[in-house]
Amino acid sequence: MAGNSFGEIFRITTFGESHGKGVGVIVDGVTPGLELQESDIQVQLDRRRPGQSFITTPRVETDEVHILSGVFEGKTTGTPLSMVLYNSDHNPAAYDDIMDKFRPGHADFSYLKKYGIRDHRGSGRASGRETAARVAAGAVARKLLEARGVSIVAYSKRIAGIECQTYDPAAIENNLLRACDSEAALLMMEKIKLLKEQNDSAGGIVECRINGLPAGLGEPVFDKLDAEISHAMLSIGAVKGIEFGAGFKAADMCGSEHNDDMDRSGFITNNAGGIVGGISTGAELLFRVVVKPTSSIAKPQRTVNLKGEEVEIITEGRHDTCICPRIVPVIEAMACLVLEDHFKRQAAMFG
Amino acid sequence: MAGNSFGEIFRITTFGESHGKGVGVIVDGVTPGLELQESDIQVQLDRRRPGQSFITTPRVETDEVHILSGVFEGKTTGTPLSMVLYNSDHNPAAYDDIMDKFRPGHADFSYLKKYGIRDHRGSGRASGRETAARVAAGAVARKLLEARGVSIVAYSKRIAGIECQTYDPAAIENNLLRACDSEAALLMMEKIKLLKEQNDSAGGIVECRINGLPAGLGEPVFDKLDAEISHAMLSIGAVKGIEFGAGFKAADMCGSEHNDDMDRSGFITNNAGGIVGGISTGAELLFRVVVKPTSSIAKPQRTVNLKGEEVEIITEGRHDTCICPRIVPVIEAMACLVLEDHFKRQAAMFG
Amino acid sequence: MAGNSFGEIFRITTFGESHGKGVGVIVDGVTPGLELQESDIQVQLDRRRPGQSFITTPRVETDEVHILSGVFEGKTTGTPLSMVLYNSDHNPAAYDDIMDKFRPGHADFSYLKKYGIRDHRGSGRASGRETAARVAAGAVARKLLEARGVSIVAYSKRIAGIECQTYDPAAIENNLLRACDSEAALLMMEKIKLLKEQNDSAGGIVECRINGLPAGLGEPVFDKLDAEISHAMLSIGAVKGIEFGAGFKAADMCGSEHNDDMDRSGFITNNAGGIVGGISTGAELLFRVVVKPTSSIAKPQRTVNLKGEEVEIITEGRHDTCICPRIVPVIEAMACLVLEDHFKRQAAMFG
Amino acid sequence: MAGNSFGEIFRITTFGESHGKGVGVIVDGVTPGLELQESDIQVQLDRRRPGQSFITTPRVETDEVHILSGVFEGKTTGTPLSMVLYNSDHNPAAYDDIMDKFRPGHADFSYLKKYGIRDHRGSGRASGRETAARVAAGAVARKLLEARGVSIVAYSKRIAGIECQTYDPAAIENNLLRACDSEAALLMMEKIKLLKEQNDSAGGIVECRINGLPAGLGEPVFDKLDAEISHAMLSIGAVKGIEFGAGFKAADMCGSEHNDDMDRSGFITNNAGGIVGGISTGAELLFRVVVKPTSSIAKPQRTVNLKGEEVEIITEGRHDTCICPRIVPVIEAMACLVLEDHFKRQAAMFG
Repeated sequence: MAGNSFGEIFRITTFGESHGKGVGVIVDGVTPGLELQESDIQVQLDRRRPGQSFITTPRVETDEVHILSGVFEGKTTGTPLSMVLYNSDHNPAAYDDIMDKFRPGHADFSYLKKYGIRDHRGSGRASGRETAARVAAGAVARKLLEARGVSIVAYSKRIAGIECQTYDPAAIENNLLRACDSEAALLMMEKIKLLKEQNDSAGGIVECRINGLPAGLGEPVFDKLDAEISHAMLSIGAVKGIEFGAGFKAADMCGSEHNDDMDRSGFITNNAGGIVGGISTGAELLFRVVVKPTSSIAKPQRTVNLKGEEVEIITEGRHDTCICPRIVPVIEAMACLVLEDHFKRQAAMFG
Repeated sequence: MAGNSFGEIFRITTFGESHGKGVGVIVDGVTPGLELQESDIQVQLDRRRPGQSFITTPRVETDEVHILSGVFEGKTTGTPLSMVLYNSDHNPAAYDDIMDKFRPGHADFSYLKKYGIRDHRGSGRASGRETAARVAAGAVARKLLEARGVSIVAYSKRIAGIECQTYDPAAIENNLLRACDSEAALLMMEKIKLLKEQNDSAGGIVECRINGLPAGLGEPVFDKLDAEISHAMLSIGAVKGIEFGAGFKAADMCGSEHNDDMDRSGFITNNAGGIVGGISTGAELLFRVVVKPTSSIAKPQRTVNLKGEEVEIITEGRHDTCICPRIVPVIEAMACLVLEDHFKRQAAMFG
Repeated sequence: MAGNSFGEIFRITTFGESHGKGVGVIVDGVTPGLELQESDIQVQLDRRRPGQSFITTPRVETDEVHILSGVFEGKTTGTPLSMVLYNSDHNPAAYDDIMDKFRPGHADFSYLKKYGIRDHRGSGRASGRETAARVAAGAVARKLLEARGVSIVAYSKRIAGIECQTYDPAAIENNLLRACDSEAALLMMEKIKLLKEQNDSAGGIVECRINGLPAGLGEPVFDKLDAEISHAMLSIGAVKGIEFGAGFKAADMCGSEHNDDMDRSGFITNNAGGIVGGISTGAELLFRVVVKPTSSIAKPQRTVNLKGEEVEIITEGRHDTCICPRIVPVIEAMACLVLEDHFKRQAAMFG
Repeated sequence: MAGNSFGEIFRITTFGESHGKGVGVIVDGVTPGLELQESDIQVQLDRRRPGQSFITTPRVETDEVHILSGVFEGKTTGTPLSMVLYNSDHNPAAYDDIMDKFRPGHADFSYLKKYGIRDHRGSGRASGRETAARVAAGAVARKLLEARGVSIVAYSKRIAGIECQTYDPAAIENNLLRACDSEAALLMMEKIKLLKEQNDSAGGIVECRINGLPAGLGEPVFDKLDAEISHAMLSIGAVKGIEFGAGFKAADMCGSEHNDDMDRSGFITNNAGGIVGGISTGAELLFRVVVKPTSSIAKPQRTVNLKGEEVEIITEGRHDTCICPRIVPVIEAMACLVLEDHFKRQAAMFG
């Protein structure tokens, strides 16, 4: 209701603020008997962690996960799995000079209007730091999905106007941008360095491919698989759009082009992106999201302060020039959460 | 859980199939004391009704709404508002020749895999006819929103590759395509006629503008206003993507371009589309969805039958060449449902 | 949220008022492929129907169920099952003389305070007539449970101060009170006749026994099986209390008495009533509810009217002298809804 | 879904096990701007804390609460309030001798059947220790309710067969049993000492009175205020029944006795216990729950072990002879959670 929970059966609730004591998550509905240790979670958190490279924020957080409950003798018990990441590098004072100004592109203004409270410490609850809790929960869903034979991979498809020309899965974790094309990655890096020097930032497109799904996953009408994935993805602060399969190109296609014909071996094309009528078809589930350029830039911008006076603002601090490489594990995590939930919903119906 | 309900406080549950006895909706959480009569609903249903023009399906349905409960002496009582539209032109036999074939672009295959049951009668529950129930419910939400000073308007922005060049609100309900540009509408009509002759169909882009919203609407983290609108829109069968404000263009913008600066009078630009951090900013809420071309076409296509044999299929019948004009009221209805729900969620927090 | 839905996976939403067009229910989450026809529902509705005997209200309602959706070719499809019972004997005018008075024991006063609206027509939504919709939905759950080997039986244990001395399952459906002891039933009848002559009414205790449940059903902490059954039972207007197993007697027992010891064949006693820690033990699930005497009596009572003036009221009309026999199928229905939902929740966890 | 959350708008999720790292709770939907510090919570936790007297378990837990998020500069922010109580006296080894035996009256058997996992450490998640998290959350709800003018008080009404003869609110917190009659309390103490010497335990009845509620609180049909309170109370492990107002005595009353007549000043009697038709009447909300005798007793009992062999068991350890005094704050906490949630639900409807 208040927006901090996600999922129906495999359901998470996150808590915590950017510069409070920590962030965390309760995962309810975990299958009992799953072998789980903190290192299973840590490996995914490390992919999202700040300070990975010159592109990403130098904020120093080890993001070490602590399991507080739900695991006994190395296995999940079916009771709530709670995990906490204590903040180490919380320095609210760093935000004192902007505490009465609304940062452009940030939720400062809309949050104040909603709650009547201003938590100026690095966006408080609206901070991207909250997504660490999602990655922790997603790592559990991923373990369950992998046991089902499902693979989930996301990567930067386009950054700062440069598009990947090939899809090379091996490249993804071998360049700082998590791009699927090593050559394009080099060009992207050049462009990002330039933007960084200009105190500016870059956006991009992240694509996600999920394989190994059976046909028949998803619920009809309102909880279509694509509707729920869209909900999940647009719940990530920097994401401003999503498209499945042929996506926005479908606007210019005619039916005979867009329809995916079938033959004995299955679907011949995949313009639908693996979902028809909201239910998985068994083809590769394919979607793309657009990631806006990082809002925090050190370039002077125009804004107003709490008194309504027009002022200039420079958002100093430790920020990612491009958030794409660190958003990749968040997107994978959210996809995992939706999928594991839908596997369980499908089981429930026949249970 | 099973996907037929939407909303938290202002919550709807739809039921019914394309060629069963009818479709309907229960709206729970309606504000008591709202003046409401069937004609308030009918006016919106008439915008979605089949048989409006040569573009749309000639299926004959008056789509007459019957309120079964929740209204007493012309006012809502706060108890469940139930509405039914009985099907008049249900003719399951018309589907006999395709009952054992999977229609490309339709949910026939994925539904069978999900439920183990094949309801071949015009898509059954997956039919676009289900959206009539949403429009009925949306009309109630719209009445409540209008009393709050909120206006919601959607229209065809692009059809069959032709884009509107102007935004003329007066044009929208005065052309068969509900396009926001009368001249573009003429070109679109020519293109659609051609496609119809070729037994083919067209897709498009529908844009929606919402004005009069206060800043502060939406829930943080998972139930961001844009996340919930995306969920709502992607729950419409033909919608394959959504973008807010600058949308996918944000991928190529840098932060200093995309950030919406503020001055004393508010936001100077609206690349965010009226939502930052998932919470409304008070600026115009602006989004676009892509609508795939109608799947049912009379052109021969390749598919398989229930036995797995490769066959040819021609989806005869009564279908819209382009669904955009009829999807406009559905998109408005879904937007209304999300917004009224979030007004009530906001009230609940402080209640 | 607004209180008209029940269940998580097997979930119902009821609608309709006592003297409106009808009452009905949407059942979402029905297992696909269940053979179901209207007569499966009707048999349970007939047990709850008014006009069964001189004890019950002479209101003439055939309570004929109409399935509007969710069944195709005699089997459930997994999509929402909607059922309607149209009111035939609705005569709102009969309530004109009490339209401005608060009937003692009725929800007239509290509903007005809640909604700011007065629907004086025979309690409107608060009428016992709403429970017909629950019985219809419960009949579906019962079919699923019977296929699992679960049996559910409720009966009058005590009426008007007279307690059954034996438990004879065969007696239950063979006396007008659905008492489990034919001899006690005769005494109860005498007492009820007397109360009826005095324009008064009787309360009682209904007991419910459920057999064939596996151990392990129910959720921990907040959704304990007994917590959910209590929720279900207290949601029936006339029910004012519930107890499991030894129930209120447990207050005076010591631990060594109340604990159910185990031997090789299972639990030796059943003071727990088949639930420990909120989870079924596999022993008989046993609970009792107290049913208050019918509020509508033709005896003069003191009350106030809408203006706050003290007035006398006589609730003429067609009312049950004792509601116990007609509440029995409602109690069974609510128990079925809880149990089927928990079977599916258990399946979901491991799904 | 998995049973670890409670409430719709003011919603809590608890986590943690008896002998793990700690127990905790996330409270979502807290009104922003509420002044809140750890001492507001601690005062209620101290009432539930073990080791208060010779009656209660000597387990040494300070139950010190730590707020991890949701409070900034001494006020709630509207974001999730998370609180943790770290376990200090966790000694799983103490349970080694019973790790393969099912303790009578405990959830050992039913949990194993549900999860397929045995967490033998002092009941794990099923431990009464989980209720500390509820008390912490309830303390927040209580602050909000007190600002609304609502008072909530529970007390032991009957213990070990001895009933309070008077209702003296001042007595409650001045005797170790939280009984509402000081003289009865002395007799109860004698009886409990005796039972303790006999390695046995006592049950009782706890009554709760809530004053200051407006008329009109509660939702119709399934979420009646009494239904939700029953759900809340029966979710406490040791509670086996509940009754409102006249309760089980209503079974023997006739309608003219049980109906609460009204005069100008309100209801003349309160057999309904302050709720009619599931909605509050504005009269005192009054209910009683039965608390079973503590299951853990050092008296030898018959049971079986994991191999199914019949064995004798003595549940040594640190247990309350009578749980009533420590369950009082838990009952108050659960009542507070239900009520605050319903205030917000009422606001939502008109919001």
